[in-house]
Amino acid sequence: MLINCVAYEEGRRLADVPASDIGSYLARPGCFVWVALRDATADELVQMQQQFGLHDLAIEDALHGHQRPKMEEFGDTLFVVLQTLELSPTDELNTGEVDVFVGPNFVLSVRNRSRHHLLGVRTRAEREPHMLKLGPGFVLYSVMDAVVDRYFPIVDALESELEIIESRIFDADSSARENVKRLYALKQRVTMVRHAVLPLLEAVGKLKGGRVPQVCVHSQEYYRDVADHLERIHGVLESLRETIATAIQVNLSMTTIAESEITKRLAAWAGVFAVATFMVGIWGMNFENMPELKQAWGYPAALALIIGACAAMWWRFRRAGWL
Amino acid sequence: MLINCVAYEEGRRLADVPASDIGSYLARPGCFVWVALRDATADELVQMQQQFGLHDLAIEDALHGHQRPKMEEFGDTLFVVLQTLELSPTDELNTGEVDVFVGPNFVLSVRNRSRHHLLGVRTRAEREPHMLKLGPGFVLYSVMDAVVDRYFPIVDALESELEIIESRIFDADSSARENVKRLYALKQRVTMVRHAVLPLLEAVGKLKGGRVPQVCVHSQEYYRDVADHLERIHGVLESLRETIATAIQVNLSMTTIAESEITKRLAAWAGVFAVATFMVGIWGMNFENMPELKQAWGYPAALALIIGACAAMWWRFRRAGWL
Amino acid sequence: MLINCVAYEEGRRLADVPASDIGSYLARPGCFVWVALRDATADELVQMQQQFGLHDLAIEDALHGHQRPKMEEFGDTLFVVLQTLELSPTDELNTGEVDVFVGPNFVLSVRNRSRHHLLGVRTRAEREPHMLKLGPGFVLYSVMDAVVDRYFPIVDALESELEIIESRIFDADSSARENVKRLYALKQRVTMVRHAVLPLLEAVGKLKGGRVPQVCVHSQEYYRDVADHLERIHGVLESLRETIATAIQVNLSMTTIAESEITKRLAAWAGVFAVATFMVGIWGMNFENMPELKQAWGYPAALALIIGACAAMWWRFRRAGWL
Amino acid sequence: MLINCVAYEEGRRLADVPASDIGSYLARPGCFVWVALRDATADELVQMQQQFGLHDLAIEDALHGHQRPKMEEFGDTLFVVLQTLELSPTDELNTGEVDVFVGPNFVLSVRNRSRHHLLGVRTRAEREPHMLKLGPGFVLYSVMDAVVDRYFPIVDALESELEIIESRIFDADSSARENVKRLYALKQRVTMVRHAVLPLLEAVGKLKGGRVPQVCVHSQEYYRDVADHLERIHGVLESLRETIATAIQVNLSMTTIAESEITKRLAAWAGVFAVATFMVGIWGMNFENMPELKQAWGYPAALALIIGACAAMWWRFRRAGWL
Amino acid sequence: MLINCVAYEEGRRLADVPASDIGSYLARPGCFVWVALRDATADELVQMQQQFGLHDLAIEDALHGHQRPKMEEFGDTLFVVLQTLELSPTDELNTGEVDVFVGPNFVLSVRNRSRHHLLGVRTRAEREPHMLKLGPGFVLYSVMDAVVDRYFPIVDALESELEIIESRIFDADSSARENVKRLYALKQRVTMVRHAVLPLLEAVGKLKGGRVPQVCVHSQEYYRDVADHLERIHGVLESLRETIATAIQVNLSMTTIAESEITKRLAAWAGVFAVATFMVGIWGMNFENMPELKQAWGYPAALALIIGACAAMWWRFRRAGWL
Repeated sequence: MLINCVAYEEGRRLADVPASDIGSYLARPGCFVWVALRDATADELVQMQQQFGLHDLAIEDALHGHQRPKMEEFGDTLFVVLQTLELSPTDELNTGEVDVFVGPNFVLSVRNRSRHHLLGVRTRAEREPHMLKLGPGFVLYSVMDAVVDRYFPIVDALESELEIIESRIFDADSSARENVKRLYALKQRVTMVRHAVLPLLEAVGKLKGGRVPQVCVHSQEYYRDVADHLERIHGVLESLRETIATAIQVNLSMTTIAESEITKRLAAWAGVFAVATFMVGIWGMNFENMPELKQAWGYPAALALIIGACAAMWWRFRRAGWL
Repeated sequence: MLINCVAYEEGRRLADVPASDIGSYLARPGCFVWVALRDATADELVQMQQQFGLHDLAIEDALHGHQRPKMEEFGDTLFVVLQTLELSPTDELNTGEVDVFVGPNFVLSVRNRSRHHLLGVRTRAEREPHMLKLGPGFVLYSVMDAVVDRYFPIVDALESELEIIESRIFDADSSARENVKRLYALKQRVTMVRHAVLPLLEAVGKLKGGRVPQVCVHSQEYYRDVADHLERIHGVLESLRETIATAIQVNLSMTTIAESEITKRLAAWAGVFAVATFMVGIWGMNFENMPELKQAWGYPAALALIIGACAAMWWRFRRAGWL
Repeated sequence: MLINCVAYEEGRRLADVPASDIGSYLARPGCFVWVALRDATADELVQMQQQFGLHDLAIEDALHGHQRPKMEEFGDTLFVVLQTLELSPTDELNTGEVDVFVGPNFVLSVRNRSRHHLLGVRTRAEREPHMLKLGPGFVLYSVMDAVVDRYFPIVDALESELEIIESRIFDADSSARENVKRLYALKQRVTMVRHAVLPLLEAVGKLKGGRVPQVCVHSQEYYRDVADHLERIHGVLESLRETIATAIQVNLSMTTIAESEITKRLAAWAGVFAVATFMVGIWGMNFENMPELKQAWGYPAALALIIGACAAMWWRFRRAGWL
Repeated sequence: MLINCVAYEEGRRLADVPASDIGSYLARPGCFVWVALRDATADELVQMQQQFGLHDLAIEDALHGHQRPKMEEFGDTLFVVLQTLELSPTDELNTGEVDVFVGPNFVLSVRNRSRHHLLGVRTRAEREPHMLKLGPGFVLYSVMDAVVDRYFPIVDALESELEIIESRIFDADSSARENVKRLYALKQRVTMVRHAVLPLLEAVGKLKGGRVPQVCVHSQEYYRDVADHLERIHGVLESLRETIATAIQVNLSMTTIAESEITKRLAAWAGVFAVATFMVGIWGMNFENMPELKQAWGYPAALALIIGACAAMWWRFRRAGWL
Repeated sequence: MLINCVAYEEGRRLADVPASDIGSYLARPGCFVWVALRDATADELVQMQQQFGLHDLAIEDALHGHQRPKMEEFGDTLFVVLQTLELSPTDELNTGEVDVFVGPNFVLSVRNRSRHHLLGVRTRAEREPHMLKLGPGFVLYSVMDAVVDRYFPIVDALESELEIIESRIFDADSSARENVKRLYALKQRVTMVRHAVLPLLEAVGKLKGGRVPQVCVHSQEYYRDVADHLERIHGVLESLRETIATAIQVNLSMTTIAESEITKRLAAWAGVFAVATFMVGIWGMNFENMPELKQAWGYPAALALIIGACAAMWWRFRRAGWL
């Protein structure tokens, strides 16, 4: 679905262009066309391919949906694949995709399976004509920046979740089983975000320093800014991964420790009752010559003795920290 | 076994060529020969070696079967080893091998221990003469693409298996023993696929960018596409490896947690019966002066007391989550 | 908040300069201005941006606070982000930030969320005019050196904490639970310090050797000194990380070993009382023909026998190291 | 001990040369001398040093025996250290060493602590004069190839051992203790082989591509073949390492799972007998008013009740999979 | 403390030089001065700084003691920091430091906190005038070689300790607790040695190949020899680290396995006595109609039955390997 298609000159909006009319604007020097599609059909993509002379392999990737961010040069056209990340209302993490084709005088962005609106990107860019003058390379930066900025709240959510789990791990009343489950789910989310961030970081690295594609050459400082954001996210993700690994170990440690405490308690109570049972067993023996059995004070004394022995043991185990 | 041997000119099929007649076509400018062998014998390979002037070491590798994908240049000839992967009907993962020799005017592919048909590759290539015109380099791409495309369903199968095991791990009724077994088997499969993918990725990397062998110079964008596919597979494999390692740990955690719960239950029931046994022991003592023994209500009262004590304990353990 | 703003010439203090008057000093050859701000407002930063011609992206970073040390070149201006680390009186680890803009004839430092006084840096620098003559590049070094020097006591504190935990782990009386908690907290601190050190080390690496920004070219040996300090800290942090990981494992081992010892003790005592209870049970049987029951020595002999058996078992378990 | 010393010209054996006469052959153009020593004494080495002008440091290494493969250039002489690996009849893994000095017109190989015969190398090389014509560089390849080829059966043996241990781990009847022992021993062997392979791989890498020592320049494709073999071995070793680490974890998991099953069984039987013992305790109480005691059917009914209760519990535990 | 200060010419000892007279020898062409200090005071260092024109930062490092080996160039002077390692008589591992300043015509070595005598280095060097002729670069090599050679016995000691612990781990009678303690202590020592070796290896790497400091250019083969020694040590340390990590895991496995065996034994004996106690309980019941109680053979038969049942269980558990 075509969202909009606008021609720009000297950083200013020139006109809304019907898709069929793009060619005439491309021919105009100092002018570039910015087309935005959403969940584009094969037909729409083929039309764009003809307008902009895009490579078969790139169109194929845009059509099938790709699962990995990347940046590829085809002649003087740049093909960039970005992954969008969104938390659904039910707190699930969904990935979408934004494909951007950038040529010397055009930008074509295709958004798939994503509720992200990139409209804001265009509006903001149009408010800064002195920037937009930098051309398609700056538009690519704007799109990237918008996509990457939305990673931050997601990474924050992952960090909060980890903090909650951490406090649960050290809380003796929480369910260790539940903790493991949540850590495992968290780890999978971190992996998802990492798959969006890491290859992109690598790709953006090619847009600054060294040999830079022609269309990006005037926006290098901006790409460095995107790379810096991605580095920060990446740093957080690496910490999360390492901490999750440690947390799983720590949770296991806490379970083992808790089990060891229960074993001690079990041992202590088993000891107390073993002694008591043994003592009542003594006076249950049928020897004829057991003088204490015949005394009036025999029974209360026996009970007192049993209770005393048990209390002594209980007190001792208590002091040893077993009870 | 010779499958077929065809000469091409300007991207179009010229003629089926008998093996003995290859030389005359090689001499023709703008023409190349594409030979396909299956489970080739030493004799067949030696014949081909003479026709195409192949290096001893490469022929030796093709004959003995190699266990690692690679790409080697011998003069202006390229020798590429690919691994094929197939799931047998009994769900076992088998590896085969495709060796490709690519020269300026010939392609020789040798398929070993593999049920994969590469016929489709030739048919598809012949349907696109404008591509096939790129020469042997494009044929090599077509073969690689066909082999790599068949890795995807296998990687998908590994991912599904992991998802099944994951849901089992968190299902208290599943056998932890079985989970470990399946995780271990899955890990071994991942390792097998990784051994097919990783060295190939490295080899394909040499076919794009930097210094590229002459025969591949016009198909670089296509090799980049293969490299991209391999990167995606590699990304999935790395996630699988890491997740399997975590899953083994998590499974151990779940076992320890389950054992800890059983220990608690055991402790609770042992406690209840220890008390009951102790109490019946009291009234089994043979003291003469035990007034309750002589009362008509003694027996029912004792039973009531015992049941009451046990119920109280049961209720308490229940509340503590031990029962 | 402006702390101070001073112009220097030939390494000597020229004059305190009001912010509005900076421009005239910048124009003077052989002279540079050094401005220090604290928790700067947007207005202050915009004023400075106009005075020194700073880049929008750098100002934005300085305003929002960044969470990752870095070094970026904008034309001939260098933008450096440093993290300060401080132990609060309640022994918490807080991070602050120092942003430094360095141009050919100015230095602007902005300190945020930090109780660190950088005043000492200026005083010390002014005492060494032959060094200060090296210009803004040397000032940057002085600031860096001051920030990095304060990492050392923090790293020392982390090492001491680890030593304490280590001695606790091997002390049978300490709480394993507490050890895990402290190790986990220590690990998080190490991660925090690492996040301050590692990206800075990378950034400082660009200020020595290879291609060095113009303003730093005369102070390279000093940056190498900073890099050397960071390397030492980094070495310690890596050891800490590895040792903490090992310590968590070792603590788990010690818990498992302790549990295994308790299990042995439990087994031993359970054995002793099981035998005793069984023996009193024998003479509690109601067979008519049990001659020993009728003997006067029956009861004492039985008690002696029971005590003897228990003592024998106790002694045996003792020798086996179970009790 | 001198094994043999032969001069070659144009790839053909010229003559057996006494050690003292080497000099005259070295002077002859197009001719090279190939000397083989075994467990050489200091005197022999010094003699060779004088003949071939070898460097002190290399001779020192050859004398003391080195523990790490390497390749060093001393002027136009190459000094290569190889490790040989052999399984002793008692299945122990022993390492020996082969030191090779290669100059423009000589090869000197010194074999230490190794039962490997390198004679076969000479015989095979002499059968292929067109190869041997390549000179000392080819001889070095032949020796390397012979040493590396003997790594394969050893690596195969390690893989077989791992497969045996794997099947044991999942076999409930095997001794977990024995499995750990064997895994540990296997890991140590893998480390030994790795120490022979990894530095050699690095060294051989310098003999192909980039800047290659003069004497090896015509045999590059052969060194690449050796490197390829080493890569394959290295790939297998890496898999082994990773799999052993996983197997140790899995073995621990299996032990924990097995223990958990025993705990369940113990809990179940303890429960059954606790109930039975409690019940016989009831009718062992001495209350006068226990009507069932006086009935003729009392005893058999009690036994039936007890057996019934136990059977019901047994059946229930059975169904829960505890028994 | 000044140990000695000697001037050399053409590799031969010229004269012992008083510290104040160094200048005149430095001026003499083809002559160099070699000064050795021990635990130098600030004054001594400042005197040397003036004599040799050393850099402030290097002197500061030499004074404060550095904790990390490194190599830094200041103009044409080289500053090298080495760590010495010594086992104290009580088997503790102590680190000292040797700082070496190397200029075109001087060597200054400063030894701190070390009982190592470097005197031997000078004696040996003076015995080989043809080497000493290589100048200060060769002296640096001699010092390095002496320091590195003393790492070998320490690494050997670490390996022996690991072997002892390994045999203890698989010895069922050893204390698992002690094993963990020793492994942990060993790991810390390995880390200490690693901190001495790794940065030095990196530094020495700069003294061979590529761009080499002028003073070392004629001794490159000797530095490669030092690098080779360090590589060997490093290889051993890496193996130690990995093996220690595995050994900690294996020790935990052995503990778990041992506990599992004890649990089995406990379960078995508990079963035997539970049955016996239940049986004596039966005949302790007070039913009037228990005919066996009245028989003369009742008691012995009951005892026989009990013993028989227990023996049967014992035998069965024995066969199952539980007892």
